[in-house]
Amino acid sequence: MVGHRSHERIQVGIVGAGQLARMTVQAAIPLDIRLRVLAERPDDGAALVAPDVVIGSPKDGATLAAFAASCDVLTFDHELVPGEHLAALDAGGHTLRPSAATMAIAQDKRRQREELGRRGLPVPPFGAVAAAEDVAAFAAEHGWPVVVKAARGGYDGRGVWVVQDAAALEVISRLIAAGGDLLVEQWLPIEREVAILVARRPNGEIVVYPLVETVQVDGICRETVVPAPVSPDLATAAAALAREIAVAVDVVGVLAVELFVVGDRLLVNELAARPHNSGHCSIEGCVTSQFEQHLRAILDWPLGSTALTAPAVVTVNVLGGPTAADPIAELPKALAIAGVHVHLYGKATRPGRKLGHVTVCDTTVDEARRRAREAAAILSGTAPVVAPR
Amino acid sequence: MVGHRSHERIQVGIVGAGQLARMTVQAAIPLDIRLRVLAERPDDGAALVAPDVVIGSPKDGATLAAFAASCDVLTFDHELVPGEHLAALDAGGHTLRPSAATMAIAQDKRRQREELGRRGLPVPPFGAVAAAEDVAAFAAEHGWPVVVKAARGGYDGRGVWVVQDAAALEVISRLIAAGGDLLVEQWLPIEREVAILVARRPNGEIVVYPLVETVQVDGICRETVVPAPVSPDLATAAAALAREIAVAVDVVGVLAVELFVVGDRLLVNELAARPHNSGHCSIEGCVTSQFEQHLRAILDWPLGSTALTAPAVVTVNVLGGPTAADPIAELPKALAIAGVHVHLYGKATRPGRKLGHVTVCDTTVDEARRRAREAAAILSGTAPVVAPR
Repeated sequence: MVGHRSHERIQVGIVGAGQLARMTVQAAIPLDIRLRVLAERPDDGAALVAPDVVIGSPKDGATLAAFAASCDVLTFDHELVPGEHLAALDAGGHTLRPSAATMAIAQDKRRQREELGRRGLPVPPFGAVAAAEDVAAFAAEHGWPVVVKAARGGYDGRGVWVVQDAAALEVISRLIAAGGDLLVEQWLPIEREVAILVARRPNGEIVVYPLVETVQVDGICRETVVPAPVSPDLATAAAALAREIAVAVDVVGVLAVELFVVGDRLLVNELAARPHNSGHCSIEGCVTSQFEQHLRAILDWPLGSTALTAPAVVTVNVLGGPTAADPIAELPKALAIAGVHVHLYGKATRPGRKLGHVTVCDTTVDEARRRAREAAAILSGTAPVVAPR
Repeated sequence: MVGHRSHERIQVGIVGAGQLARMTVQAAIPLDIRLRVLAERPDDGAALVAPDVVIGSPKDGATLAAFAASCDVLTFDHELVPGEHLAALDAGGHTLRPSAATMAIAQDKRRQREELGRRGLPVPPFGAVAAAEDVAAFAAEHGWPVVVKAARGGYDGRGVWVVQDAAALEVISRLIAAGGDLLVEQWLPIEREVAILVARRPNGEIVVYPLVETVQVDGICRETVVPAPVSPDLATAAAALAREIAVAVDVVGVLAVELFVVGDRLLVNELAARPHNSGHCSIEGCVTSQFEQHLRAILDWPLGSTALTAPAVVTVNVLGGPTAADPIAELPKALAIAGVHVHLYGKATRPGRKLGHVTVCDTTVDEARRRAREAAAILSGTAPVVAPR
């Protein structure tokens, strides 16, 4: 056959093969991007759908080094890669996007607070915790209750403890004795939580997505709502803050900035230097999905429009129900609901586990939310997990 | 790990691995559908992105039988599977969607005319051609020029000959001598060509997509425009006609109906019992893409909304330019144009070959077309292929 593919093609590697990598695999197809996935297990969500999978642990330095050697650009599905391995790859001349330095910040909540606080960016009052007495001293200054958090590895409500008074400090002593790396924060009267995605190229170009409300139940994000029900001024401030943070942490790729709304103030809760649950709504709800955007950013290609495709976009997570029913069994029933976009992650079912999400775009939030919740409840095999409002 | 995937999962097999299969692979990921692809070559467009590929010829009966035995439902990327093999699979109890009977109609333009004409559906006046004299006799009744077409296998302008007068009949004699299976049609003053997609489930549910104008140059579809610039009455008539044809040919899955607009009349040009170039605009332009819809239909799942997501949707095909440059080299430049959705098929470049497409959704056709053409021209390495109007 006459024909050729003359262009030198860039090999992208994703470390980790969860749902973020899975949705990135999907986004890579239309742009004809070569993607290789490092999966711990052959039945990881992304390993089930990727054409090019390497099986190995992202915590093993030799595995990582071999994987990096087979790729031109490395990016990450999660933050669980040991920092010393990332630094070694960086030192070895591999292209990490985001960089080892950015990942080190993303991996450590205390460092996030320190880095942002040092630059005068708004974070909750916080302190380091080396002993239970540090928590008591912090509370003496800021008042009880306080919130103690694991600096590393906590997510979906894990690694967060509200400490009501000095009598409850014993649990903190035990955590420290078990090797926990902790920080303490002022308990805040949080009105709502919001998140904003930003993407940044090596050349400095930045785009910001619309502000998203993230509705949390028991520390787990249950649904996201766009537009977030905040004042235009607050939304504008969030966008400016996200830009500033993207530059401050020198991110390349997508950065999710989770924010607390306290009165008319925004305080940075957490950063994730990758696509994020709060951006799943962008797949159908924005012109450019966060997964395509992340790929464009790490390849230093022009970034895409973040404009909304509809007036209201609601995404509801599908969590494993108490009976651990397989959502695929309920899929036809969910698809009977008008306009639902179902995304299943190919994971084994377990009560409370994020198995997928449902997005509905509509003219009003109420209408989009009603149908997205209904479909998600069907897929979970439960009644709606968040009471309708 | 605790957890299970208890549900018996359906294995879908696609025969053929071109761009339609490739985009179906992409659509299968969020619905967690198991897809296996039968590819002739490991570098076929879909074989490059699918996690489960069997290499073999769809023209070989034994290969097909083995592939069918490994799948619960078979569907098709193209019409090039020999009818006797399809009939054998059908007789062997395999589930073909569409069926062998529907495929037999889709594979043969003369049978399409006969089947539809027999039911009183509007087709151009036509006749069978066993010898050059049949063409002359047809022309004597309907006037010169006439259009002679290969009944099977022609596409993208191949297999169509406009015969101006009796002096030009010699080429027809030669085609017949070479074993060509031909039909002859009245030459029509075609105002424009349009296409309409319909999807049908085994349970009889049907959904119809918005009517699309297909702009052809040298018999190759260069761009599609939604909404098609026709009267509301004609669009309504096209939708009714598409429904009627879907039932008439007993299709399961997506059916594309290509139509000629002649004055205020619609005449059926061609049928394709699969996703189709005229439906690529549905990926971003409709709530449910034709690829997801096809999967839902062949799995007998509820069909999705076909509503437009924007007032205007223009798709421009990326054809290989004269220099056969690789579009991936120009991709960053094309992505710099606002709101373009680029889809590359992973094919080797060859002048005139369909290598991908670009879709833009906007508030007006003019604006969407301008940007889609610009991006497609960049990717083709050419000036715009259709003069702006």
